[in-house]
Amino acid sequence: MRGDLFSPECPTRKLLDRIGTKWMSMAVKVLAEEAGELRFSELRRRMPGVSQKMLSVTLQGMVKDGLVGRRVEPVVPPRVFYRLTPLGLSLDEPLAALREWAEEHMVEIDHANQRYTQDAPGV
Amino acid sequence: MRGDLFSPECPTRKLLDRIGTKWMSMAVKVLAEEAGELRFSELRRRMPGVSQKMLSVTLQGMVKDGLVGRRVEPVVPPRVFYRLTPLGLSLDEPLAALREWAEEHMVEIDHANQRYTQDAPGV
Repeated sequence: MRGDLFSPECPTRKLLDRIGTKWMSMAVKVLAEEAGELRFSELRRRMPGVSQKMLSVTLQGMVKDGLVGRRVEPVVPPRVFYRLTPLGLSLDEPLAALREWAEEHMVEIDHANQRYTQDAPGV
Repeated sequence: MRGDLFSPECPTRKLLDRIGTKWMSMAVKVLAEEAGELRFSELRRRMPGVSQKMLSVTLQGMVKDGLVGRRVEPVVPPRVFYRLTPLGLSLDEPLAALREWAEEHMVEIDHANQRYTQDAPGV
């Protein structure tokens, strides 16, 4: 059985809105490049601009979706490690394609935005 | 010049959050398959579950980003047509890869969600 984005009740829709976000995209890239575990603090360092809260929420969602595994080392204070699951790793390629597209066309889209604002067309 | 997702001030971040959404993904697919113009009402018919408001907002954003062209036929009531620009068409391939991934792994991710909820781990 597979999902169908064009079926209104299908969870694929919600899934798609979760996986394409900037923080998810960055976390997958950083963890895929590491090819191993990373501590929360190290992940945060490699995702400039992410808040502690947003990274927490992002990682919790990824653990819930089975994209990321979480391991706690019971020291004081506890050390928490994250790594991609095989499922999470399989997401790296499609996300990289979208990221590439966005980075490559960012300037073009910025210009389109400026033209649109200048022309201020009716909608 | 190209964008850099990992640079906090770079508009690539906001762009990425816009282009990965379910409605954008569906609109690009429908318009790419049509390979021509579609009226608003026909687009809406082919995107089951989208509200008039959401489709309006989505298309307006795509016009602003230069992904979609809009043409109004001045009849009463006016007929409004949309088509992908070459830039919008270039987005079809990366979005299709992400959509494919989501549809293919939807069940697996649903199961991961159920396991997570049953185990109810601390975070």
